[in-house]
Amino acid sequence: MPLTDRLLLGPGPSNPYPEVAAAFARPLLGHLDPEFLALLDETSARLRTVFRTENELTLPVSGTGSAGMEACFVNLVEPGDHVIIGVNGVFGERMCEVARRCGAALTRVEAPWGRAIDPEALLAAQRSRPDSRFVAVVHAETSTGVENSIAPLAALQETDTLLLVDTVTSLGGIPLEVDGWGIDAAYSGTQKCLGVPPGLSPVTFSARAVDRIRTRDTRPQSWYLDLGLIGDYVGAARKYHHTAPIAMIFALHAGLGAVLDEGLPAGWARHRAVGDRLQRSLPELGFRLLAEEGHRLPQLTSVALPPGADDAGLRKALLEGSGIEVGGGLGEYAGIAWRIGLMGHSARERSVTTLLGALGELLN
Amino acid sequence: MPLTDRLLLGPGPSNPYPEVAAAFARPLLGHLDPEFLALLDETSARLRTVFRTENELTLPVSGTGSAGMEACFVNLVEPGDHVIIGVNGVFGERMCEVARRCGAALTRVEAPWGRAIDPEALLAAQRSRPDSRFVAVVHAETSTGVENSIAPLAALQETDTLLLVDTVTSLGGIPLEVDGWGIDAAYSGTQKCLGVPPGLSPVTFSARAVDRIRTRDTRPQSWYLDLGLIGDYVGAARKYHHTAPIAMIFALHAGLGAVLDEGLPAGWARHRAVGDRLQRSLPELGFRLLAEEGHRLPQLTSVALPPGADDAGLRKALLEGSGIEVGGGLGEYAGIAWRIGLMGHSARERSVTTLLGALGELLN
Repeated sequence: MPLTDRLLLGPGPSNPYPEVAAAFARPLLGHLDPEFLALLDETSARLRTVFRTENELTLPVSGTGSAGMEACFVNLVEPGDHVIIGVNGVFGERMCEVARRCGAALTRVEAPWGRAIDPEALLAAQRSRPDSRFVAVVHAETSTGVENSIAPLAALQETDTLLLVDTVTSLGGIPLEVDGWGIDAAYSGTQKCLGVPPGLSPVTFSARAVDRIRTRDTRPQSWYLDLGLIGDYVGAARKYHHTAPIAMIFALHAGLGAVLDEGLPAGWARHRAVGDRLQRSLPELGFRLLAEEGHRLPQLTSVALPPGADDAGLRKALLEGSGIEVGGGLGEYAGIAWRIGLMGHSARERSVTTLLGALGELLN
Repeated sequence: MPLTDRLLLGPGPSNPYPEVAAAFARPLLGHLDPEFLALLDETSARLRTVFRTENELTLPVSGTGSAGMEACFVNLVEPGDHVIIGVNGVFGERMCEVARRCGAALTRVEAPWGRAIDPEALLAAQRSRPDSRFVAVVHAETSTGVENSIAPLAALQETDTLLLVDTVTSLGGIPLEVDGWGIDAAYSGTQKCLGVPPGLSPVTFSARAVDRIRTRDTRPQSWYLDLGLIGDYVGAARKYHHTAPIAMIFALHAGLGAVLDEGLPAGWARHRAVGDRLQRSLPELGFRLLAEEGHRLPQLTSVALPPGADDAGLRKALLEGSGIEVGGGLGEYAGIAWRIGLMGHSARERSVTTLLGALGELLN
């Protein structure tokens, strides 16, 4: 059967950068090979540049973005801790579920689907519960296409409460300043704006987050995601923990290389330009933008379908007729909305031209 | 810098099959693309063939072998449960640590390093604690090169205690009969005898293990590894859980294809033939086999170094002079022993010839 070549314009994975495909072809190395360890160090250094941080504990967790989420929770939370979580979509809900499984009590700070969370509401919740371990919020809510403002939460640095941010869909696509915004812990994914297949979750932890991990009373409930142990392998000790996903780290290293060759500001501008063009054009075809103006992510656009349009039928026609994947709605948006991603290597003018052309043919 | 091409003869990763490198070059698909889901189904079917099981719940967990271990524990154990664990090396110890983090009480059934665990001792421990949730044992102990006998533990099928087996280093390399030996849960890794890079952990669960998961009183402490949720994605419901590591699944699919094209019995015979040759030859060079006779794994040979030999210096000379990686000792064997793997695509006569030739030059 001939191989299928999709244009990936869903909520992730995006099409990998060509440099990534080349990296997969590299002969495999062992996880303790000096050449691999040098490449792993360079990968962590590249992640620091992309996260805009000096954090020493910066590494790819050996799982997808949700494993990174879980790594942050199991390492920073102990049973009985209180946390504050912003919820305005599926991924905020997921954080609540993960927190509960860690034995945490939680305060939810909500916004309706399609609206951003008011950072002042998060800060107020912290003032009500100053013993909270952290405030957690999703930077780029992949279920709605909404950007939540993170910068105002830097005020948490004046408190004993940490700031945890989900940057799965934001990293590499829109400005993100881990150190500048006082973010204590962040997790991301490879398959969005970094242009790498799914399989790893970059994470970074500030000095005070690391202190929190070092002074826990209990061991993290996950051995696999225990950052104290993982840090001993990725760090100078090089102590074996688990076998790193070597080929995926080759791929991430190459994807980050492509991102940094372009330059972060140029990459952000590219994502913004193609996203703006898509968001200007879709209403002309009868789609309605669902995310609040001023908080629309360029890399992930959520739209209500034109009246009477057939969700599944249209997506099938796009996929089978043109080889274009777009994403269906999740949660409250299931069946009535699409999520269109322009991320990483998919964030190109050609992608927008192709999609608008195919939609024009299908809808007229 | 030119790319380095190693002969990987450590405890894993092994050299991937050529078919695997080709699979990584395939254009990426989305995790909900019908073509990807068909490939995932075929991957699960191939895993059933390799595990020798009809178990419906058979899938690759999105992490390395240790994630598969943790998936088995967090899904099968609830806080306060009692488990029995066989310990004769690092990976039995790791199971104890993971069990403790799940809140389980445990009985250890030990054997000295290099010796096999007496299956009768495991069965006796179960008779003393018939309320035990499972008996867990490592089939192929990668830290010592010892094979533990699993078949006699089929007697557990007559009890309410499940049988959990670590097959990370055995799957594809030596006979393993999940259904024939009454194994209720098994986890493996891709980077050993399957000839695929690290990054996924194939797991399989019997009907009574699935019943145990379905009738839990509490949710598993890990959301990422919750097999009830993962099964809804891999199974007919196709419900989104987390984004699958798509490129790694392409690779696993291809590696399993290579394994099955050769045929399992032929692959087992190949591993046996090259392992036997290595184990006959190493003593002639002054090495001493550490694993108990009759329980020596062909795919992983542990040897004490010749008297006076310099562990780190010799391994460095092999790596830098000949591009050959062998493994150092772990735990009790650190600094005094090597672990030499002949697994997957590395399990070839040429590997043995090359290694013996290089060692002969270095030691004479």
